Amino acid sequence: MHGHILRHLQFLTIQSTQLSLLSLVAVCQWSSITEKTSYKTFKKRREHHAMSTNFINGEANTDYESLITPLLSSQRPLVNSTSQVAIVGAHVCPIESLDYEIAENDFLKQDWRSRGKMQIFQYVLMKWLLCFLIGLIVSLIGFFNNLAVENIAGMKFVVTSNMMMLNRFGMAFLVFSVSNLILTLVASIITAFIAPAAAGSGIPEVKAYLNGVDAPGIFSLRTLVIKIIGSITAVSSSLLVGKAGPMVHTGACVAALLGQGGSKRFKLTWRWLRFFKNDRDRRDLVTCGSAAGIAAAFRAPVGGVLFALEEMASWWRSALLWRSFFTTAVVAIVLRALIDFCLSGKCGLFGKGGLIMFDVYSESVTYHLIDVLPVLTLGAIGGILGSLYNFLLDKVLRIYNRINEKGVVYKILIACAISIFTSCLLFGLPWLASCQPCPSDASEACPTIGRSGNFKKFQCPPGQYNDLASLIFNTNDDSVRNLFSKNTKFEFQFSSILIFFVTCYFLSIISYGIVAPAGLFIPVIVTGASYGRFVGMLVGSHSNLDHGLYAVLGAASFLGGSMRMTVSLCVIILELTNNLLLLPLIMLVLLVSKTVADAFNSNIYDLIMNAKGFPYLETHTEPYMRQLTVGDVVRGPLQVFQGIEKVGNIVHVLSTTSHNGFPVIDEPPLSESPVLYGLILRAHAIELLKKKAFMPTPVPIGTDALKLFYAGDFLKRGSSNGDKIEDLQFTEEEMEMFLDLHPFTNASPYTVVDSMSLAKALILFREVGLRHLMVTPKISGRSPVVGILTRHDFMPGHILDLHPMLARSRWKRLRIRAPRLFKLF
Amino acid sequence: MHGHILRHLQFLTIQSTQLSLLSLVAVCQWSSITEKTSYKTFKKRREHHAMSTNFINGEANTDYESLITPLLSSQRPLVNSTSQVAIVGAHVCPIESLDYEIAENDFLKQDWRSRGKMQIFQYVLMKWLLCFLIGLIVSLIGFFNNLAVENIAGMKFVVTSNMMMLNRFGMAFLVFSVSNLILTLVASIITAFIAPAAAGSGIPEVKAYLNGVDAPGIFSLRTLVIKIIGSITAVSSSLLVGKAGPMVHTGACVAALLGQGGSKRFKLTWRWLRFFKNDRDRRDLVTCGSAAGIAAAFRAPVGGVLFALEEMASWWRSALLWRSFFTTAVVAIVLRALIDFCLSGKCGLFGKGGLIMFDVYSESVTYHLIDVLPVLTLGAIGGILGSLYNFLLDKVLRIYNRINEKGVVYKILIACAISIFTSCLLFGLPWLASCQPCPSDASEACPTIGRSGNFKKFQCPPGQYNDLASLIFNTNDDSVRNLFSKNTKFEFQFSSILIFFVTCYFLSIISYGIVAPAGLFIPVIVTGASYGRFVGMLVGSHSNLDHGLYAVLGAASFLGGSMRMTVSLCVIILELTNNLLLLPLIMLVLLVSKTVADAFNSNIYDLIMNAKGFPYLETHTEPYMRQLTVGDVVRGPLQVFQGIEKVGNIVHVLSTTSHNGFPVIDEPPLSESPVLYGLILRAHAIELLKKKAFMPTPVPIGTDALKLFYAGDFLKRGSSNGDKIEDLQFTEEEMEMFLDLHPFTNASPYTVVDSMSLAKALILFREVGLRHLMVTPKISGRSPVVGILTRHDFMPGHILDLHPMLARSRWKRLRIRAPRLFKLF
Repeated sequence: MHGHILRHLQFLTIQSTQLSLLSLVAVCQWSSITEKTSYKTFKKRREHHAMSTNFINGEANTDYESLITPLLSSQRPLVNSTSQVAIVGAHVCPIESLDYEIAENDFLKQDWRSRGKMQIFQYVLMKWLLCFLIGLIVSLIGFFNNLAVENIAGMKFVVTSNMMMLNRFGMAFLVFSVSNLILTLVASIITAFIAPAAAGSGIPEVKAYLNGVDAPGIFSLRTLVIKIIGSITAVSSSLLVGKAGPMVHTGACVAALLGQGGSKRFKLTWRWLRFFKNDRDRRDLVTCGSAAGIAAAFRAPVGGVLFALEEMASWWRSALLWRSFFTTAVVAIVLRALIDFCLSGKCGLFGKGGLIMFDVYSESVTYHLIDVLPVLTLGAIGGILGSLYNFLLDKVLRIYNRINEKGVVYKILIACAISIFTSCLLFGLPWLASCQPCPSDASEACPTIGRSGNFKKFQCPPGQYNDLASLIFNTNDDSVRNLFSKNTKFEFQFSSILIFFVTCYFLSIISYGIVAPAGLFIPVIVTGASYGRFVGMLVGSHSNLDHGLYAVLGAASFLGGSMRMTVSLCVIILELTNNLLLLPLIMLVLLVSKTVADAFNSNIYDLIMNAKGFPYLETHTEPYMRQLTVGDVVRGPLQVFQGIEKVGNIVHVLSTTSHNGFPVIDEPPLSESPVLYGLILRAHAIELLKKKAFMPTPVPIGTDALKLFYAGDFLKRGSSNGDKIEDLQFTEEEMEMFLDLHPFTNASPYTVVDSMSLAKALILFREVGLRHLMVTPKISGRSPVVGILTRHDFMPGHILDLHPMLARSRWKRLRIRAPRLFKLF
Repeated sequence: MHGHILRHLQFLTIQSTQLSLLSLVAVCQWSSITEKTSYKTFKKRREHHAMSTNFINGEANTDYESLITPLLSSQRPLVNSTSQVAIVGAHVCPIESLDYEIAENDFLKQDWRSRGKMQIFQYVLMKWLLCFLIGLIVSLIGFFNNLAVENIAGMKFVVTSNMMMLNRFGMAFLVFSVSNLILTLVASIITAFIAPAAAGSGIPEVKAYLNGVDAPGIFSLRTLVIKIIGSITAVSSSLLVGKAGPMVHTGACVAALLGQGGSKRFKLTWRWLRFFKNDRDRRDLVTCGSAAGIAAAFRAPVGGVLFALEEMASWWRSALLWRSFFTTAVVAIVLRALIDFCLSGKCGLFGKGGLIMFDVYSESVTYHLIDVLPVLTLGAIGGILGSLYNFLLDKVLRIYNRINEKGVVYKILIACAISIFTSCLLFGLPWLASCQPCPSDASEACPTIGRSGNFKKFQCPPGQYNDLASLIFNTNDDSVRNLFSKNTKFEFQFSSILIFFVTCYFLSIISYGIVAPAGLFIPVIVTGASYGRFVGMLVGSHSNLDHGLYAVLGAASFLGGSMRMTVSLCVIILELTNNLLLLPLIMLVLLVSKTVADAFNSNIYDLIMNAKGFPYLETHTEPYMRQLTVGDVVRGPLQVFQGIEKVGNIVHVLSTTSHNGFPVIDEPPLSESPVLYGLILRAHAIELLKKKAFMPTPVPIGTDALKLFYAGDFLKRGSSNGDKIEDLQFTEEEMEMFLDLHPFTNASPYTVVDSMSLAKALILFREVGLRHLMVTPKISGRSPVVGILTRHDFMPGHILDLHPMLARSRWKRLRIRAPRLFKLF
């Protein structure tokens, strides 16, 4: 009988260990606050150790003993080695998790109970009002962005073209390259010095935020302003960077700022806004904001909703679908009104570029079985090119990061170098192309007058045009339009398209990493469109499809191969090109290119997030997680508080550890046996210490708590820099007093037993959106809690570090990897 | 000190109660197996009872005591009064929950651990292969459905029209009504006698299934066949019923059958299919199947995915988006190939109806600010009409159900009555319309020759046509096409459209409830289109929009008002009408109509599900759930097993209760204090009893378990009729023997403490998709488990029954209800 119990239950002995202070990384001004909760170590005694290691080595040991004994040996490191910092924008910062769990302490419960019909009405009304405001502001910003870019870049091209008309080529190059350099310098300097979090596309940061990772500074007002100005200047400077990614970040930023519940600093507080002072409601708003961003960037309201759903959001409810749909509908309607206004010619150089869709409608798109083969090939090669693109971009980013570490000056130097290089390419390459005679039946002026159009004159004599200049010496939006345009079979030369494709492919890879707001959508679309047109020319008369259609399909295949979205890309492309009849072909291309590309690596945003160090929680569980129990990964040292705790202890623990949650335990004088009362958050403990609600003796605080605190003290503010323990001062006397933690403790945290498999615990953690998951022992041992799991404990990298034998085991995630093709690089 | 503990902790005393046998409802051949787990009652002693009831009555009692005392008195009924039966199709059946939780017993763990790369590869390959097969089969069925309907109904109309050409009106009516009656009779008789689960649209049943409710018989092969034949005959019989809903059910059925892991009865078993023998993987397949259903019904692949996402699925992962997208892409491509084949004229009367989209493209849809007001009004009134439609449909269904209870004959009589009534209306009403002279510039033959076309001759002299007959004496698909057709401002008379609208509105309400497969999409679209065209005529010259466009917008507003979807409806309408320029207007109409309609009642499928009695778990929590703790709703009597239990006890408990999960507890001889070991499912316990793995003395089974069982025994089969306890026979001797439950018990069930708020527990329950949620006491009392929560415990109706004061409290869900307008009916 005794043997049986022993086999089932793991006895725990508590071993006292020295509290080892984690060496905190303090790269930012924030103090590094990490997630892990520390402890008194538990060491498990196990009987069938030899057998379990035997089991690991891939032999299917079906002996019953092996089923119930833990798989892994107990020799493991004491602390979670996962990095608690990540690169946010262009800056290394400590990161935290967000609190999506409903913290049920007495005050927040009270806050809920006191909400009447009126409060609920306010909440509902504000939810919709905020969505309306997000839609309105984002569409205005999106329109302003385009207006500014079209005018600045347009002015630049008009001036340069005019000089070239007069054959002053040297002067033209000087004006072109210097204005590009100045614009790039402005973008990179303001980004590097004022808001480093605004660098890059921002999509990885927002995606990580929606997954529960709080990167400091990404949603500040400063970041928003710099993102907008930086994006305008960077795009205007003819760098091959997009504006869709920055628009997503802008939208998310607007949403987060609106949902912050006002600002104390700027004296903007409103009682109606206080309902949004929690991470759950802010998450919903940020999701709507990112949908609005895509909707404004591409004028694709449905595509925006789907993009937020498929790519950005980690948690989704159908109520959210409805709200984000409302938000993007507002965007669509406002944009339409603004564009109607501009059609009357009051917007300067705001021409057919920018927000106008790439209209490739042709009355009847006909395609037959014969067209399927080239389209499939196009999709497959697009997938390979896309995954290679991801691979190269990832490598380049890592190189840039190494250079960036040397200092801000290096960052700006890279930006300048790339700007000059880009200017040289853009101005130099068209000279390689031979001049083409203007077609007699051209539907527009040839050569082009003004700034947009298919027939750039460049160096050519009158009556001729330079096809490569039409593509390369132009804004990206106009290039895409030219590539997508139908019935232009003979407009472009084979060599021009090839040069353009190769240039775009590599230029966009090296441009993304600069310290300025830079998106990836438009570069990928331009590259893909030129690739598609190139394939169309290769296929030639073997297919009936228009070359413009090939360009659209090429863009789709490249997007599919790089971004790996399905439904949302499909709808975005449909909304961009305004042609529903293309649907089956686009679906086919996307399916093929995504499938092919998935065999090589993961999508571009995941790669960037990984490179940046965000602990992103995936939905799926790795197969080896089924082999591990929660007890195999939970580690400490665990630091617990008593229900009524000495102030000195609390201060000591808070200042010597960096953990964000602490179990509260009632021990024998307070209860019969040790009982887990709940979990107290660091922020709440600091709030208590700040108010100094101390008692001379260890007695319950009772009703006094209500006089000293109100629920608002425990609501979470939007910005992540809260009070720090170092800022608080206590007298010797105060340190000897007591604090009753009960009313302030989340009395119903989610718990799991330590024998649960890691995969099952991850489902709970991910689906409910937890920050801390308490692990309780299977049998009630000496301590009612074994440890706390945080997001970092579920990271595959961390688990494989902990249990290196898993990496070699047959349970490693299956992925049909191509032979290490890319390892050559 | 002691007072403090008392206040915080609720002492539990165990009171022994008589096990009261629930009177089982056994309406089907299944034995009614309910979800609740029974118990020895716990009665809570509470100190501040008076205060808590005081609190309930709406006074914001901010006294600290009121914050920590339970809100509700302990006088509550002992059993969950929620009905454990529901109307599935046209039949009352007991329902169960599905097992989405990963049951971690030793055998299933072993199954996982023994899976190598090859098994995982098989699993992944099968997943995609099954999706491909679902797409292929559903598109073939969808095409066959349409082909059959077009030919049967077309033949009927051609024959009738030919008779009317010869002025043999009486004979024509006779042929028309008798053929309708026969078709209806066939549909209703096969449905009523062979597969009652095939009645209705099936969307509510599938939606409930995807929420975790297992209604018996909805996914059997019999149901599938009857659904297909019944839908064809019902639609062909000119009843105002749709085929989209039945297609969704068909798709789901195909998916569930494919994912059943073969069939033992038909000797179709394949080792590769065994991975799908669990409810989680089947759920994913059924989601893909329902997406394929809509895709096949409307030729809307993207709309199908979004429909499954927005309306059907309760759990969604982005991996699922990708798979359902693949499925619908297969549907789109196969359908296109089949229609290309039919265009060559080899499909009989398969004309422009059926699967061809309602192509309403016009080169440039222009709309201005002046058009916004009529469109908004149209949306608002459409919302009101839609919610009234829902209200009436719900009432009619309830009346029908009361009649249906009297017997099968009554069901069939209703169907016949409605068929005759419909025939009379369809044939009679066109006589009210005056004949119109054929327009001189008509683009098609006038009067129409053959079956489809805008200009039905009916009783009119040559050179004239009957506009009402063109709408009403036609298949629904053709009516919609006529209504959507552009540049037909003068084709229809005001009175004809009005008559048609009113007829459709009420006819579709009374037609839905008959005992035959019947969808709602097409009836709602027809009604909405006629409503929209009516509004367009009213607005007349005050708007520039085409009347065909008004019809589209009217259909959108009616769909929005009745079905309340947003993105998916938007995309389905776009794909149906093939016009992306309509997007902003459709978004606007959907927003307005859904908002208006939501003020009155909930969406049509939820109403039907409610009327049918499905315990659907909503995503949102009602405000009053924040006021209740889990302990307030958990009830018993709880029946537990010992870790090593006497066979007699297990048999007794299984046969006297109807619960599906039982806590397994290790008590003092086995452990120091009572410990919750886990949860054993009824199905697994029966499996154990069947194999008779009994031991003469209470000792652990050890390695013998492996010899007697293998993991496959614990995988869940697709059909819900498993073994029953009544079928097993035991000798006296066996009854005195023992069973070691440990290896067969799910050792890591999800648990919550009894002080957690109900809202927080619901989030866990819903997000993770649980069947049983164990409730543990806050302090370790006499029993380590307080009770088990099931889906029924979270039903608002049940909770309000339990705590009637909540219904009057200010926490009841806020909904801006219009003054009881509809109560007049």
